[in-house]
Amino acid sequence: MEISQLGEFGLIDRLTEPFNTRVPSTVLGVGDDTAILSQDSKRETLVTTDLLLEGIHFDLMYCPLKHLGFKAVSVNVSDILAMNGRPEQIVVSIGVSKRFAVEDIEALYLGIHEACEVYGVDLVGGDTCSSLTGLTISITAIGSAEAGKAVRRSGAKVNDLICLSGNVGAAYMGLQLCEREKLAYDGTADFRPRFEGREYILQRQLRPYARLDVIEALRKAGIVPTSMIDVSDGVASELLHISKASGVGCRIFDKKIPIDYETSAMAEELNINVITAALNGGEDYELLFTVPLGMKDLVEKIEDVRLIGYITEESDGCHLVANDGNLIPLLAQGHHFKKDEA
Amino acid sequence: MEISQLGEFGLIDRLTEPFNTRVPSTVLGVGDDTAILSQDSKRETLVTTDLLLEGIHFDLMYCPLKHLGFKAVSVNVSDILAMNGRPEQIVVSIGVSKRFAVEDIEALYLGIHEACEVYGVDLVGGDTCSSLTGLTISITAIGSAEAGKAVRRSGAKVNDLICLSGNVGAAYMGLQLCEREKLAYDGTADFRPRFEGREYILQRQLRPYARLDVIEALRKAGIVPTSMIDVSDGVASELLHISKASGVGCRIFDKKIPIDYETSAMAEELNINVITAALNGGEDYELLFTVPLGMKDLVEKIEDVRLIGYITEESDGCHLVANDGNLIPLLAQGHHFKKDEA
Repeated sequence: MEISQLGEFGLIDRLTEPFNTRVPSTVLGVGDDTAILSQDSKRETLVTTDLLLEGIHFDLMYCPLKHLGFKAVSVNVSDILAMNGRPEQIVVSIGVSKRFAVEDIEALYLGIHEACEVYGVDLVGGDTCSSLTGLTISITAIGSAEAGKAVRRSGAKVNDLICLSGNVGAAYMGLQLCEREKLAYDGTADFRPRFEGREYILQRQLRPYARLDVIEALRKAGIVPTSMIDVSDGVASELLHISKASGVGCRIFDKKIPIDYETSAMAEELNINVITAALNGGEDYELLFTVPLGMKDLVEKIEDVRLIGYITEESDGCHLVANDGNLIPLLAQGHHFKKDEA
Repeated sequence: MEISQLGEFGLIDRLTEPFNTRVPSTVLGVGDDTAILSQDSKRETLVTTDLLLEGIHFDLMYCPLKHLGFKAVSVNVSDILAMNGRPEQIVVSIGVSKRFAVEDIEALYLGIHEACEVYGVDLVGGDTCSSLTGLTISITAIGSAEAGKAVRRSGAKVNDLICLSGNVGAAYMGLQLCEREKLAYDGTADFRPRFEGREYILQRQLRPYARLDVIEALRKAGIVPTSMIDVSDGVASELLHISKASGVGCRIFDKKIPIDYETSAMAEELNINVITAALNGGEDYELLFTVPLGMKDLVEKIEDVRLIGYITEESDGCHLVANDGNLIPLLAQGHHFKKDEA
């Protein structure tokens, strides 16, 4: 059977199905943003890992190695934050082909170092080896949460409000911009990519920031989300994860989806439906979470967080409410293993 | 600068040099078999990661995917054991090209599952994505030890005895055998590789077992090594790590190096110096450790553990004592990033 017949999530389900957990320190295994481990009664350890492969997750034609290092850490830190956890350590493995000089790998680690500073995490280990082709980066992040306080995908309740940090679709449109300029590149020394006025979406694609600021703001406001996930595969896909794990449905409103001006302008220029980009684009690394209805006033005061919808009964399904009032079913799209690229 | 000018260890030193640790839960960062993290006063968390790349660490011409899955877990578990820790969880990331069917990846996970059963660890997370070329496997293992009881590389003392589990050089000779048969393969359906009587070295290469049994035997006997490391890059390289980290020298005896009959026979057949294979071959995943002189009687009773030498003053250097009494300096050879393949 070809992997493309199953897709990313189908393959993961199939592969992990025979595995049961039995180690006493395993609190939660496969299926959320991170695993939860416990050594004592006060703190829990969170673990998450991501693999970044050249040609799949990044293109060194337009992705500077320093930014890539920063991004690789952000992607993992984002998963720890999505459990309402505190990121603490990372381990980094890289596979490097002969085409890279020591200076290239130093640039990558400069970005990793910057991210460690920004997120306050320690690099505590890793593995470095040669590869036959291209660059491979594998990072595992470790964090912690108070025992029982990690926020899972499974806690959303009917009538909860759906909240989203920042804006979405920007990273995807940044990627489209990079791809356009890559095609336009004519090999000449004086080629100047048309990036003016598009700095924000470029930064969102090349050097995303995991929303440590939002987690800190929620903590200060005393808000503990009922469920949370980070937006790596697109809002639609993540909402379906929360709904499935929580046994609920959801409605989000077209006109409430936060979209930056640059994202809209780029989408228009490239003739891409901006709502599709915003809901299915991926790599936003924003936080999507639910809070009880009674927290509406409190959560509305959090900077850079918007209410985009609410949780319904499971039988109501998961829908986008279009501007004309029509209900459009939300569809999943695994970003890292799309059926057409598997 | 080309990476080959630095070698694996030189590159790691250079890349990790700018990183300091400051997170309170970080007890030990880069530089040992695992990192040590602490959330409370009773237990410490151990973390280690390894990256396995097709064409570098394995060749699917002769490495069955099921065995590869088992090996990938063993390699990581071995690092946890080398800290005298208890392996508890793993996270597994894979990158898979179109050439692989679902059944191939299931075979890989069958081996991972078997290893989880053998070592008593839980699979708790991971990442699955497509790759452009070949198979990439990244595993991070998590374990635990009593607070302050993890055995580091740095604790060897002058006059300590140097102990080695099992035998060495077998995995390397198994690899040479596989490579010979790969060259001999003529593409015909009735090709039969000449593996008879070489099952042991084949197994050591293709499906290594991390020495959980030795750690359990040491625990039962009440022996806590003063220093320990697992043999992944060869006994010589690992002894140099222990010596450097502990600020000591060492002497090991040519005639005491445990070598299996199949290893010797294969080395003779292929005209390879068996002591070189035993000391620099790599991938043995045996445990190399030191104990105080006073534990000689106790450690000699542990099954499948041999005394191969002793720790000296740092100024005495690190030497192999040849059968004729000559002292031969031990040389490091990074197995995964040899200068000629970097």
